[in-house]
Amino acid sequence: MTAKPQSTLLSPLQTARQLAAGFALTAVERDERGGTPKAERDALRDSGLLALSIPTRYGGLGARWSETLQIVREFAKVDSSIAHVFGFHHLMLATVRLFARPEQWQPWFEQTARQNWFWGNALNPLDTRTVVKDCGGWREFSGKKSFCSGASDSQMLIASAADESAGGKLLIAAIPSARSGITLHDDWNNIGQRQTDSGSATFERVRVEESELLLDPGPLSTPFACLRPLIAQLTFTHLFLGIAEGAFAEARQYTLSETRLWHKSAARDVREDPYVLAHYGEFWVALEGIRRLVERAAALLDDAWAKGPNLSAEERGHLATAIATAKVAASRQGLEICSRLFEVTGARSTHASLRLDRHWRNLRTQTLHDPLDYKLHELGDWALNQALPMPTFYS
Amino acid sequence: MTAKPQSTLLSPLQTARQLAAGFALTAVERDERGGTPKAERDALRDSGLLALSIPTRYGGLGARWSETLQIVREFAKVDSSIAHVFGFHHLMLATVRLFARPEQWQPWFEQTARQNWFWGNALNPLDTRTVVKDCGGWREFSGKKSFCSGASDSQMLIASAADESAGGKLLIAAIPSARSGITLHDDWNNIGQRQTDSGSATFERVRVEESELLLDPGPLSTPFACLRPLIAQLTFTHLFLGIAEGAFAEARQYTLSETRLWHKSAARDVREDPYVLAHYGEFWVALEGIRRLVERAAALLDDAWAKGPNLSAEERGHLATAIATAKVAASRQGLEICSRLFEVTGARSTHASLRLDRHWRNLRTQTLHDPLDYKLHELGDWALNQALPMPTFYS
Amino acid sequence: MTAKPQSTLLSPLQTARQLAAGFALTAVERDERGGTPKAERDALRDSGLLALSIPTRYGGLGARWSETLQIVREFAKVDSSIAHVFGFHHLMLATVRLFARPEQWQPWFEQTARQNWFWGNALNPLDTRTVVKDCGGWREFSGKKSFCSGASDSQMLIASAADESAGGKLLIAAIPSARSGITLHDDWNNIGQRQTDSGSATFERVRVEESELLLDPGPLSTPFACLRPLIAQLTFTHLFLGIAEGAFAEARQYTLSETRLWHKSAARDVREDPYVLAHYGEFWVALEGIRRLVERAAALLDDAWAKGPNLSAEERGHLATAIATAKVAASRQGLEICSRLFEVTGARSTHASLRLDRHWRNLRTQTLHDPLDYKLHELGDWALNQALPMPTFYS
Amino acid sequence: MTAKPQSTLLSPLQTARQLAAGFALTAVERDERGGTPKAERDALRDSGLLALSIPTRYGGLGARWSETLQIVREFAKVDSSIAHVFGFHHLMLATVRLFARPEQWQPWFEQTARQNWFWGNALNPLDTRTVVKDCGGWREFSGKKSFCSGASDSQMLIASAADESAGGKLLIAAIPSARSGITLHDDWNNIGQRQTDSGSATFERVRVEESELLLDPGPLSTPFACLRPLIAQLTFTHLFLGIAEGAFAEARQYTLSETRLWHKSAARDVREDPYVLAHYGEFWVALEGIRRLVERAAALLDDAWAKGPNLSAEERGHLATAIATAKVAASRQGLEICSRLFEVTGARSTHASLRLDRHWRNLRTQTLHDPLDYKLHELGDWALNQALPMPTFYS
Repeated sequence: MTAKPQSTLLSPLQTARQLAAGFALTAVERDERGGTPKAERDALRDSGLLALSIPTRYGGLGARWSETLQIVREFAKVDSSIAHVFGFHHLMLATVRLFARPEQWQPWFEQTARQNWFWGNALNPLDTRTVVKDCGGWREFSGKKSFCSGASDSQMLIASAADESAGGKLLIAAIPSARSGITLHDDWNNIGQRQTDSGSATFERVRVEESELLLDPGPLSTPFACLRPLIAQLTFTHLFLGIAEGAFAEARQYTLSETRLWHKSAARDVREDPYVLAHYGEFWVALEGIRRLVERAAALLDDAWAKGPNLSAEERGHLATAIATAKVAASRQGLEICSRLFEVTGARSTHASLRLDRHWRNLRTQTLHDPLDYKLHELGDWALNQALPMPTFYS
Repeated sequence: MTAKPQSTLLSPLQTARQLAAGFALTAVERDERGGTPKAERDALRDSGLLALSIPTRYGGLGARWSETLQIVREFAKVDSSIAHVFGFHHLMLATVRLFARPEQWQPWFEQTARQNWFWGNALNPLDTRTVVKDCGGWREFSGKKSFCSGASDSQMLIASAADESAGGKLLIAAIPSARSGITLHDDWNNIGQRQTDSGSATFERVRVEESELLLDPGPLSTPFACLRPLIAQLTFTHLFLGIAEGAFAEARQYTLSETRLWHKSAARDVREDPYVLAHYGEFWVALEGIRRLVERAAALLDDAWAKGPNLSAEERGHLATAIATAKVAASRQGLEICSRLFEVTGARSTHASLRLDRHWRNLRTQTLHDPLDYKLHELGDWALNQALPMPTFYS
Repeated sequence: MTAKPQSTLLSPLQTARQLAAGFALTAVERDERGGTPKAERDALRDSGLLALSIPTRYGGLGARWSETLQIVREFAKVDSSIAHVFGFHHLMLATVRLFARPEQWQPWFEQTARQNWFWGNALNPLDTRTVVKDCGGWREFSGKKSFCSGASDSQMLIASAADESAGGKLLIAAIPSARSGITLHDDWNNIGQRQTDSGSATFERVRVEESELLLDPGPLSTPFACLRPLIAQLTFTHLFLGIAEGAFAEARQYTLSETRLWHKSAARDVREDPYVLAHYGEFWVALEGIRRLVERAAALLDDAWAKGPNLSAEERGHLATAIATAKVAASRQGLEICSRLFEVTGARSTHASLRLDRHWRNLRTQTLHDPLDYKLHELGDWALNQALPMPTFYS
Repeated sequence: MTAKPQSTLLSPLQTARQLAAGFALTAVERDERGGTPKAERDALRDSGLLALSIPTRYGGLGARWSETLQIVREFAKVDSSIAHVFGFHHLMLATVRLFARPEQWQPWFEQTARQNWFWGNALNPLDTRTVVKDCGGWREFSGKKSFCSGASDSQMLIASAADESAGGKLLIAAIPSARSGITLHDDWNNIGQRQTDSGSATFERVRVEESELLLDPGPLSTPFACLRPLIAQLTFTHLFLGIAEGAFAEARQYTLSETRLWHKSAARDVREDPYVLAHYGEFWVALEGIRRLVERAAALLDDAWAKGPNLSAEERGHLATAIATAKVAASRQGLEICSRLFEVTGARSTHASLRLDRHWRNLRTQTLHDPLDYKLHELGDWALNQALPMPTFYS
């Protein structure tokens, strides 16, 4: 494999850090531009990290989830769009692993590892505009789908359609992105996560083979299969933490090199100003709190994943609460940091060339994936009634 | 005066609302574009509102400060950049009124009212790069100046320079913006307040006549003259409130027309969802709190202004604490509203076409003018030690 | 009237301040003791302030509600139990005024003013254990009632009973506290508001005359009658503000006289410590915010009261939102102040002899009267849907 | 050892839980009473847990610090006074271990384990009223000392005195509590931590032998010796977490068994009320955040302790930041939980028989030991400037 000589010498984390250093150089400019980060996606392909979560027996790097998510977080420190599509790529791999038969996912894993395929998302279960038609022997997907993160420039797609003959039940398939009838609209233009290509797709009588349907054991069918939404939620949580850490690091650099002491301060230097220090102390307490919750949830996910089909509903439920807890904390405290950091960088740090607001914009956008209020509701039900969350695509 | 037939029939507030309705149509697009809102500035000229705070005897509309600031707030609901330069225009008028002799400011007032002059700012007292040279009979200002809000497309400028022969004492002058040697750089490109033209200016041996210097009674020379920074601070506070009110109104409209009920909600409609209602309840309490503090501070400013040279240092000090209190509340609660509103509008409201993030960006940018931490310090000194704030250009 | 020579020379507010100064001397000791503050209640009787809200034509002092509530707040600064029963006394007078016929309340008003009657509460509408029996010509109240604030040592009682023959409809009556069959249990022993006697009462076949029933126009029958719960809510809000103000004043005195500078501080004196000043700044902003909301709500209540039967449901609704807003802010910010004040007084200020925790205990207790969550729900319904609160005994 | 037959069958944690179950029965009553919890202290003696942190070679149970602190937390859930003096007992043992020579502390350890000695505190380094006199061969301690937690009913005391001949340097000694000249005043009567006996002591020419002085290596002399204040701080942090957990558990029990659904709720049962669930969700997120930070800090302390004299200043510094972080979070979030829990238990839960306010009172009192503001200052210095905390008796 001449394509990735470097990576073979570096650990995945080292490779990721090297990539991240490169992404950082253009992150501000790309935040402005939006669109597909083609060069960066190709760099990910070349790095071999698209096979990160694939077991070594199928040609992958065999990383545990905690390792994969640590790299999501590492990317998010400098570029949360890339972190997002990278994390979602692995989530899509988890989706076929959890919802399909080994005869299905094993070849997909092998080809992904061998050919550095990128997987994209067209699954949004709340958008029921895409419907399925049974053509006897194959199915046809037709309709629209929103929030298709990472679908552009992907080789494979996880798509869903409502089966109206079965009461609107969700059918999920893994199909080549290039298949006839699929149009990916480059219409993602949002205030944050601007290079995630989370726009819409149209399916026009897209033929889906039976062997591409994820039916056995099927979506959310067993406690183990129900890890899928938890991996999604924990991926977000690592994004949130990474964004907050990146924002903190950039603010710190700015304060140390640029921020001026306020003329009324009794301190000699901005880095000794009591209020500046108090803000940094608050940021630190917040970040450490998130880090501990996130690391704990990732360790629990590793444990749950290792249990495979033996995972019980109760074990899955406890993992769900750990992830929800980390997510609430990361969302809230992260937003606070990304908004308040300006108070320790000052008026001049609002210059657009820094785009120091992008951390808040990215976090604000991604934290809206599903409402925090209902995560707290779930956690309250656990805390008060010891009722574990009912598995859905969002919890 | 055929130029403003409408305004003569409408009250200033009605005129402002009519203008604001027009500004609202293009606010999103102009936030993206940045630069000078030439058409809108001309509409302000045509409206006669540039003479709003000028006493009727000099051809103005004779508004009290509370009325002028109410219109700043009204503009800020839809376009905080225009609100800013409009407010600063009147602050510049207050500057000559407070720091100069009647023989100086009366003709300026009259010409401003007659010719709809726009005044801009080049005063930043913390930027000491512009220095003054005494040429015997006149002075020369040379150097750079940052944060010159509203200087572009203005007729008059309030500029300051450090008099190194007098220990760096600030000399302030009112000069025509078109005077030879003044270059206004269109270099304001920041994350918020994008059409305030708060960029930099260069003075190259700009000749300033003695009659243009604001020396008698001079800057911050009497309690009455010390109202100048308070008018600035209260103008900001009205900006902040207006931004928060505009953000609330836009969020509300979006929730009512676009936001979908979360599928786990027990409510039948998003407008009955208990968490959505709780957020709106919080927003309401926050907004009402700011409104009451702001209105009170504005009424106190009217009183103080009416006292003129009889204003005592103590009365000025109490006004300063009322304004600082309102400012802290408006900054904090406003930022909270502008960031949290997305939790009641949802993921789709992050679409860039709405630029719903501009409220947070505008408020975040403007609230950095001077650090809140030191406003709280001042208020603490008042609350604990009953020490009133020492007048400076920031308090 | 030789009993109150002083009061006739002093304004009601001056009289109240004089009384408050006396209450303050024993407030700590009485907080510990609990029970009925007999001496203080008698001092209130002697002061003439029990006739404060009674119109002059009936022998009262003719105070507006804003004046009456200002005195509630004044008492609450030093003793929120006395403030509570004093406020409730006037609420009971408002109850007969609003729910009964002039032939009923006029004599009660006159007698109250002449004989300095104290009115107590036995109305709790959520406690339906007391039922009424129609005896043909009179009624009998039998059962228990909880939270009967100020009933001990009262001359008159507002009592309610559920009329099971009318679907549990609430019948309200004004009866002498000494009437046969009424037992007031001295069983209030709670963590706060310890001298409000908010314990339970038992009614054993208590005879209630038709002329004692408040039937015309009856409870919550007209917008004007619906002011009753609003007066209750605004009385609480004044209590909350007064408690917070008293806590602040006591903390300030302690910091100035007792608190030691922390050895790591760069300041020379605790009153210059940057963090101590920041806390006091925060307290000030919070208190000012509450004050403005409370004063505004009180002014609106005066307006609404003056409209009498002409008050519209919509006007009443706007008043309800203003009061709810003030209440939410006063509850939240007040609790914050009462808990955080210790951070500027220090470890030694926890000595039990100061009972500096009583402010938090009093406020914590009283803010639970009805849940803030549902006040926010109501305010959210107003803010989002412009639905004014439906009148109940709690809103 | 016939005195503790049960304990030998149970793990220390099981023993502690059994003891805690007993303490819980009388915790409310003892909170009211204050004073020395003699029976409970004797139960601790009988349990063998006073030897918990003593290495097995000296007859102790050989627990790691994380285990000892877990038991502090376990006790704090039901009785934070007992948790405090129990934790301080082990802190006193650590003090002699870290500041004295093995020939000194080994016999003290052996005797403590054998005779179930209780150690108390008379060390307060900020109270310099006790001074030392060199009597040639021995010293005399004379003066007062405040905040002597656990000194009453103790066998041994860690006492300090200022050596005025050495610039006020602190001399620390371990002496029998019964030594002639020592008077422990039972004058602790504070709003919280009421059975910690944290009152004052008087030393009247108390003879202290050279062999009782902790001089080698002496206080805060090496990074390892500097673990002493960190053990103190982490003991507090476990107290805070335990209090918050106990408050949560008690609130939960009350909500489930007693709290009534508010009549305006759309839910059928209080345990399904959306706002009640949201509060419990918030509590859970807060508690989990504290738990993770506390557990991490305890694990780091175990590591640091294991390094012994090889511990570097930098390693000690990182531990200090981890502990300070946990402490800030536990203080803040804990106070929030202890104050807000009433919003999910309701008005009736303020009955004094429950003393549900004691959690807030205990936490409020103990969190004032040293100011949070300066902990945040230290953490800010680390976060911004990567300056590790300078060791003192408070950090």
